[in-house]
Amino acid sequence: MIDLTLEAARAIVGTALETARARGLKPLAVVVYDARGALKSVAVEDGTSLRRAEIAMGKANGALALGLGSRAIHARAEVQPYFVAAVSHVAGPAALVPVAGGVLIRSAEGRLLGAVGISGDTSDNDEICAVAGIEAAGLAAETGA
Amino acid sequence: MIDLTLEAARAIVGTALETARARGLKPLAVVVYDARGALKSVAVEDGTSLRRAEIAMGKANGALALGLGSRAIHARAEVQPYFVAAVSHVAGPAALVPVAGGVLIRSAEGRLLGAVGISGDTSDNDEICAVAGIEAAGLAAETGA
Amino acid sequence: MIDLTLEAARAIVGTALETARARGLKPLAVVVYDARGALKSVAVEDGTSLRRAEIAMGKANGALALGLGSRAIHARAEVQPYFVAAVSHVAGPAALVPVAGGVLIRSAEGRLLGAVGISGDTSDNDEICAVAGIEAAGLAAETGA
Amino acid sequence: MIDLTLEAARAIVGTALETARARGLKPLAVVVYDARGALKSVAVEDGTSLRRAEIAMGKANGALALGLGSRAIHARAEVQPYFVAAVSHVAGPAALVPVAGGVLIRSAEGRLLGAVGISGDTSDNDEICAVAGIEAAGLAAETGA
Repeated sequence: MIDLTLEAARAIVGTALETARARGLKPLAVVVYDARGALKSVAVEDGTSLRRAEIAMGKANGALALGLGSRAIHARAEVQPYFVAAVSHVAGPAALVPVAGGVLIRSAEGRLLGAVGISGDTSDNDEICAVAGIEAAGLAAETGA
Repeated sequence: MIDLTLEAARAIVGTALETARARGLKPLAVVVYDARGALKSVAVEDGTSLRRAEIAMGKANGALALGLGSRAIHARAEVQPYFVAAVSHVAGPAALVPVAGGVLIRSAEGRLLGAVGISGDTSDNDEICAVAGIEAAGLAAETGA
Repeated sequence: MIDLTLEAARAIVGTALETARARGLKPLAVVVYDARGALKSVAVEDGTSLRRAEIAMGKANGALALGLGSRAIHARAEVQPYFVAAVSHVAGPAALVPVAGGVLIRSAEGRLLGAVGISGDTSDNDEICAVAGIEAAGLAAETGA
Repeated sequence: MIDLTLEAARAIVGTALETARARGLKPLAVVVYDARGALKSVAVEDGTSLRRAEIAMGKANGALALGLGSRAIHARAEVQPYFVAAVSHVAGPAALVPVAGGVLIRSAEGRLLGAVGISGDTSDNDEICAVAGIEAAGLAAETGA
């Protein structure tokens, strides 16, 4: 795969949400971007707060901006909060949210295809659902761990 | 229905895209917001340009901002471009795109449930797909015509 | 070519500037983006005004946002200025400048590789230099004519 | 030299990238501004993440905004993060990124000519390449150390 297809993006969202329901997590927002930072697929479950999708977007968009899973951006924010705050100004309108749950999507050969962002439960649980979705689509997940 | 469910939003997206494929339209971006202006579902077909999803968002978000289908906002832009330009500054980050294809979603009883935005083909064709999606979900479409 | 390389981007810039000097044009700003909307190469000649590079960026970025050479965006701005004004709000920080001189770069097979934006002389002359650069690199130029 | 020429800016970029390749660093984005804060030259190597050029711009633009190499801005961010956060709002669209790698360019006589920003490897390595580029062009580098 050279470009992330809508079919693959939907498969990622589908498994991410199935994973959330199987685990009894809170309602999630799931977003998938391609490598250009263009949205491919979004699903927001019933009962989420008003800007939950935008938080998920900030996780995924930040991961693409820096080329790092958002767990790694979180780690940098802990030691250099001013750096992460500054980069949020250059991350574009979709912003940058520096906690786990923004996961890079790579092909089996390692080519960057896009990113998934999930928000709604704990960051760790959000990330578990993102990884499950990516792997179920036969792709490789990079969390930044 | 009091609030637009993810299930209904997905049904709208699904029929909108089936309609586009049956008509041989260009690849579309389809977005669905609930009545709060919170994203519920997005699907962006393969082959769209870089900011097609954002244009679809601007149609739907503008419709919610003014309580008018974007075809009516288009008509107003033709006679009062300064009004529409000014309102775009208060429409929030999702902006306002004043051409057809941003369609309000109402329940059978007339309650506002959200809006659909579509971009990719002509504005008229974008709107046809939005209406098809809304009606297939058993809901009422308000285009601003 | 799947992704625009720095080598190709520099070749485009080099020929664009040679073309400008051979024709005795005013000093130019030349920018090249890849298909993600990420900058690859910029050169700004001596004597340009303060924000000439940003105007070139707006031409190229707008072309990528809409998937149209900026000459076509110019034509739409003539008939629907409010549409183009609105889309500039969703085109991202690099903005959208709706006049000729923002030219899409395609591979010989038609795959979108990026865009060139040039500003400094007349829009027609800016576009001539962009096309010369793209074609000298063995790629195809889409001006929106 | 009174104003930074494109020729000098390109020489700086060229040596910066040669230095990076000789040291086996990660792919870099290199940007050069003149003293007005106008872009002169940009080169972004293949394989960088989506917003790497913007981070480099934020380093150089911030250095010009405050008249300090970005290493000094970093030091201030460690003790007064609120000051640096506030100044980022007045630094203009190119923002301010407060880590090393934004280096002021001065003539031999000390006249401010512009700034280089580099991002892609560690901040220390980014700065080494910026200094190498500036010095190879016969100019003086001010890192903020």
